[in-house]
Amino acid sequence: MYHNDFYTPETQGAYELISIGELQLENGGVIPECELAVTTLGTLNEARDNAILITTWFSGTHQTWLQHYIGPGHALDPGKYFIVIINQIGNGLSTSPHNTSDPAITGSKFPRVSIGDDVVAQERLLREHFGIQQLYAVVGGSMGAEQTYEWAVRFPEKVQRAAPIAGTAQATPHDQLFTRVLAEAITVDPGYADGEYTSNEAVSEGLRRHARVWTLLGLSTEFWKQEYWRSLGFESKEQFISEFFEPLFAAMDPNALLTMAWKWGNGDVARHTDGDLAAALGRIKAKVFVMPINEDMFFPVRDCAAEQALIPGSELRVIEHIAGHFGLFNFDESYMQQVDQHLGELLAS
Amino acid sequence: MYHNDFYTPETQGAYELISIGELQLENGGVIPECELAVTTLGTLNEARDNAILITTWFSGTHQTWLQHYIGPGHALDPGKYFIVIINQIGNGLSTSPHNTSDPAITGSKFPRVSIGDDVVAQERLLREHFGIQQLYAVVGGSMGAEQTYEWAVRFPEKVQRAAPIAGTAQATPHDQLFTRVLAEAITVDPGYADGEYTSNEAVSEGLRRHARVWTLLGLSTEFWKQEYWRSLGFESKEQFISEFFEPLFAAMDPNALLTMAWKWGNGDVARHTDGDLAAALGRIKAKVFVMPINEDMFFPVRDCAAEQALIPGSELRVIEHIAGHFGLFNFDESYMQQVDQHLGELLAS
Repeated sequence: MYHNDFYTPETQGAYELISIGELQLENGGVIPECELAVTTLGTLNEARDNAILITTWFSGTHQTWLQHYIGPGHALDPGKYFIVIINQIGNGLSTSPHNTSDPAITGSKFPRVSIGDDVVAQERLLREHFGIQQLYAVVGGSMGAEQTYEWAVRFPEKVQRAAPIAGTAQATPHDQLFTRVLAEAITVDPGYADGEYTSNEAVSEGLRRHARVWTLLGLSTEFWKQEYWRSLGFESKEQFISEFFEPLFAAMDPNALLTMAWKWGNGDVARHTDGDLAAALGRIKAKVFVMPINEDMFFPVRDCAAEQALIPGSELRVIEHIAGHFGLFNFDESYMQQVDQHLGELLAS
Repeated sequence: MYHNDFYTPETQGAYELISIGELQLENGGVIPECELAVTTLGTLNEARDNAILITTWFSGTHQTWLQHYIGPGHALDPGKYFIVIINQIGNGLSTSPHNTSDPAITGSKFPRVSIGDDVVAQERLLREHFGIQQLYAVVGGSMGAEQTYEWAVRFPEKVQRAAPIAGTAQATPHDQLFTRVLAEAITVDPGYADGEYTSNEAVSEGLRRHARVWTLLGLSTEFWKQEYWRSLGFESKEQFISEFFEPLFAAMDPNALLTMAWKWGNGDVARHTDGDLAAALGRIKAKVFVMPINEDMFFPVRDCAAEQALIPGSELRVIEHIAGHFGLFNFDESYMQQVDQHLGELLAS
């Protein structure tokens, strides 16, 4: 356990830590007291049927959602909906390797957490803490899409609408290779010390190397070709990388990233149906809009479309953005306009 | 200098080392005695006008060309053409960090070699050693495509036909990021010892990590999704990677790979025209077929098509193959059939 400024309300915006008690994990192991970092907007109505759950992506927190996706004028309007953003386990805000004082799970001893574990934890929190039995919608991007699909498959009766953005229900083989390389960029750093480093700063080289791996697939080849980073105020791609990309990841906790990388590469709704993906997705009762980003290099449209074809009544809504996967960060409003258009239709349906 | 079994006639097939003497380098420095590893097939006719030059790609040698691209029944038919394959400088066969006994350039002291340096060296060799003043065609894939373009721009009168496959005339920004990450996967290995390792085996971890980075972009997401590796005789992607991919790269010389990575990321025909790519490509007099591979993740068709549009009289011929960039290895005949079709047309034109 150590203090990391990145994972504080000052950096991330306000959140509440809510304990759901002990969480038994799918792959063995237990989190004796699992706390989830939660932010809510809007008001839960008396029928408790206007709740929208937002899940978080790899390395992400509730913050990007607050800054870009939610507010008056957006489809995710707190004037209409009770919006609950739950940070995923191990993301640095919810119970995570660096912030738990429990000696059984701190640092390198943190157990393998799955997408399913997150969804079980989220469902318990929503039910026990807010009295929510059914969700008006679940919305999430990337690993948040994995959680969104998991919700719709695991709890078909509890999800009325679902919008998985730039992600899949079943991690692809390429995801498994990608998360391995991302992890290795960190663990090869001698400062990583098998996970028993003293702070993220001791692993700065590894975290920056990890950031550079992201430059190959997080953004599209065309993002670099067209020098889109100029519109973000940078003068060279090197400056964009060394002053934005690398410091962003260097501020994070190595074990948190590794926890999420493993979780991402092992997400699979077909665990519920003996490996039969079609059967798993066929269970979904929610109205689903599958929303890939056209320039995404590792969640290509065709992978998302193939899953969409297995979901009854679903629609494929492709978002166009040159930033590819990291379009999720809403680098310009052309992205959010498309998201709002599609989400608006889904929420009105 | 050390002995590496990978860079021997026993492993790579026969070749001749031909010295072109001293080579002054574009970016400063000199190779006091530059030897190029050359393999020829067919017979140079009396007019000396039936010569086709083949250039080599990153980590590649003449071997793949001999095994897959050249022979009776192929467009590259030694019955018709005098085919000269010249291994690029620093590829481990031609003068390279590990095989030179010159203390001024051995190991970590090997100078920066550019695509232009290779083409200057190749032109000298062809002219002085074979008396070839003009080439019937230049053909190359990936970094070999960079050399092919460099030939057509630098020596417009000397190239009648050109077929750059799966590569560009100007390294893209993404190439620069990719080659950096590839290089770092090696240099972060403590065994690399700033380039003064005793043999490739001391850098085995780094070379294997380098191989795993290649799995993310060298093959397409769809290659992995469809488990194409099964058709190559493997039972899992892990086996394909650990028994084929990793040993292949682990056998190579680290400094050779780093020499080629730098060269690749800095290839640019616009050096001849003060950075004006259109002006550079506009100089080309060869008939050019630009041949990207549709699933290539880092030389996407659009990048190749944008250059093709700047080349007078050129044609875009897209090769379709699920393996993406590594389609170049001709994993199945559907690839070579397309190459032969396009090359056949080009050579008959």
